[in-house]
Amino acid sequence: MNYAILGTGALGGYYGACLQRAGLEVHFLLHSDYRHVREHGLRVDSVNGDFTLPRVHAYQRAGDMPACDMAIVALKTTQNYLLSQMLPAVLKPDGAALILQNGLGVENRVAEILGPERVMGGLCFLCSNKIGPGHIRHLDYGRIRMADYADGYRPAGITPRLERVAGDFRRAGIEILLAEDLLLARWEKLVWNIPFNGLSVVLNASTEQMIHDPTIRDLAVALMQEVTAGAAAQQRRISPEFVQKMLDNTARMKPYHTSMKLDYDAGHSLEIEAIFGEPLAAARRAGVNLPRIDMLYRQLKFLDPGREERRLL
Amino acid sequence: MNYAILGTGALGGYYGACLQRAGLEVHFLLHSDYRHVREHGLRVDSVNGDFTLPRVHAYQRAGDMPACDMAIVALKTTQNYLLSQMLPAVLKPDGAALILQNGLGVENRVAEILGPERVMGGLCFLCSNKIGPGHIRHLDYGRIRMADYADGYRPAGITPRLERVAGDFRRAGIEILLAEDLLLARWEKLVWNIPFNGLSVVLNASTEQMIHDPTIRDLAVALMQEVTAGAAAQQRRISPEFVQKMLDNTARMKPYHTSMKLDYDAGHSLEIEAIFGEPLAAARRAGVNLPRIDMLYRQLKFLDPGREERRLL
Repeated sequence: MNYAILGTGALGGYYGACLQRAGLEVHFLLHSDYRHVREHGLRVDSVNGDFTLPRVHAYQRAGDMPACDMAIVALKTTQNYLLSQMLPAVLKPDGAALILQNGLGVENRVAEILGPERVMGGLCFLCSNKIGPGHIRHLDYGRIRMADYADGYRPAGITPRLERVAGDFRRAGIEILLAEDLLLARWEKLVWNIPFNGLSVVLNASTEQMIHDPTIRDLAVALMQEVTAGAAAQQRRISPEFVQKMLDNTARMKPYHTSMKLDYDAGHSLEIEAIFGEPLAAARRAGVNLPRIDMLYRQLKFLDPGREERRLL
Repeated sequence: MNYAILGTGALGGYYGACLQRAGLEVHFLLHSDYRHVREHGLRVDSVNGDFTLPRVHAYQRAGDMPACDMAIVALKTTQNYLLSQMLPAVLKPDGAALILQNGLGVENRVAEILGPERVMGGLCFLCSNKIGPGHIRHLDYGRIRMADYADGYRPAGITPRLERVAGDFRRAGIEILLAEDLLLARWEKLVWNIPFNGLSVVLNASTEQMIHDPTIRDLAVALMQEVTAGAAAQQRRISPEFVQKMLDNTARMKPYHTSMKLDYDAGHSLEIEAIFGEPLAAARRAGVNLPRIDMLYRQLKFLDPGREERRLL
């Protein structure tokens, strides 16, 4: 199988570089770093050992890429409007997309583009930054929870295709957990992302500052319980023990800034719709209101550095 | 009747100066401005006409003040812990306190100090700043909704004492509306203060920016409805028409920063407990949860410039 990396940033660049280092054929779509990466390749400073790939297949436009078996979608979700043109351009007729983004609902839209049998998803637990053109710093973690997709987020189980892709990633040294139910896996990730990504921007705070403040810790718990209620509205059960585990893990994490906080500080668009808007809409369709998540959603929309930009669309 | 002004800031300084200009005996308690005001008096730049009072009765400590008939409490609510010592020191044995602060519950605590028959309250609609020592700029409004207090916030009706104090203020050129039910008047004021004071800090925004953003306007409405639910938990009815009027007034106001935003920007303690904590606690005692107000309360506690200071207490 050959791979197309759509979005060679901190996440796509890291996983793509690992796959290529393991001997797989990887094609990288780049935007601002194109010229630099075409000439100098990719450089990864990793807690697991630094490495460079002096030569990579770099492309500036999806239309120039060869047809691939698997397109790894590692764009910011705010750029997903590009997928309807990008995915058909880079995939073989039976090629599939693996959505490595946070939030909810992207697979449903990709299924409309490619058909439901050509979609997979994954949740990344990765702490990495892009610190220069084609230069990625991998700080911690790296695990992916991967699942196959079935129409309307029905649980797809563990498919042979899922095992095959997981095998490629594992050969590349990436820890992979398989999930039978992509929708449940996405809601579980939201248990962390919704309180901590959201509040980190509104409160201008690190995970450490939030989890060690009793007032905010209790608010995070209330937000996590609303995520649980949202999952229940889609017939997915998240246990109180899971919520407790997320809190304990957060208290033990090294202090760091969430991806949304980094985007905010850099003046980039925030991934508000995928992480907040879609879960709220899914719950609302089932008649469930999530008042605190709705409030956080509205605060983030107001604070979003991308709001002026979107007004131009 | 003679008056003691406890807290000669933008609010106490303005109303006290108006009372003295009308010929009433007024005694001003000052902190940082004491020396300046003792020598130079007070200066008011007002939309209704500038004036100066070259001589005022200025005091640095409540214990030095003469016994007064009426103590006007114009401290920040964050300084209310001073009242248990201050009020008995400045009042005649039958003197009363008039609480000119926002929020809920202060009269109950003052009733514990003085007895319930020696308490009154008022809600000020005033836009003024202190722009230098003993120098107040009165920008707009000035109306006070004044009410007498009865034990446990029972409606006290229009009492002769209320009429007498109102008469003094009116002679000083201050518009006074009388209210029969202090608790209802306080909840009605919160309909505006809770959304706009709170969100102005969290979102770093002016009233104009908030009211003209549909996402935030809807959030303000949801918060106002929670205030209405809190009032209902204390058997006070606020009509949907009143909420609508607050929104319409806000849209018509000149853009300005709320008092809480000004405090935040100046690095001062925020009046979180009186405006958010007390109403939440009152509703909770009646079994009513106000999730959005609770969330805003927690966010403000985290952002409060006074939190480090309070940790020292």
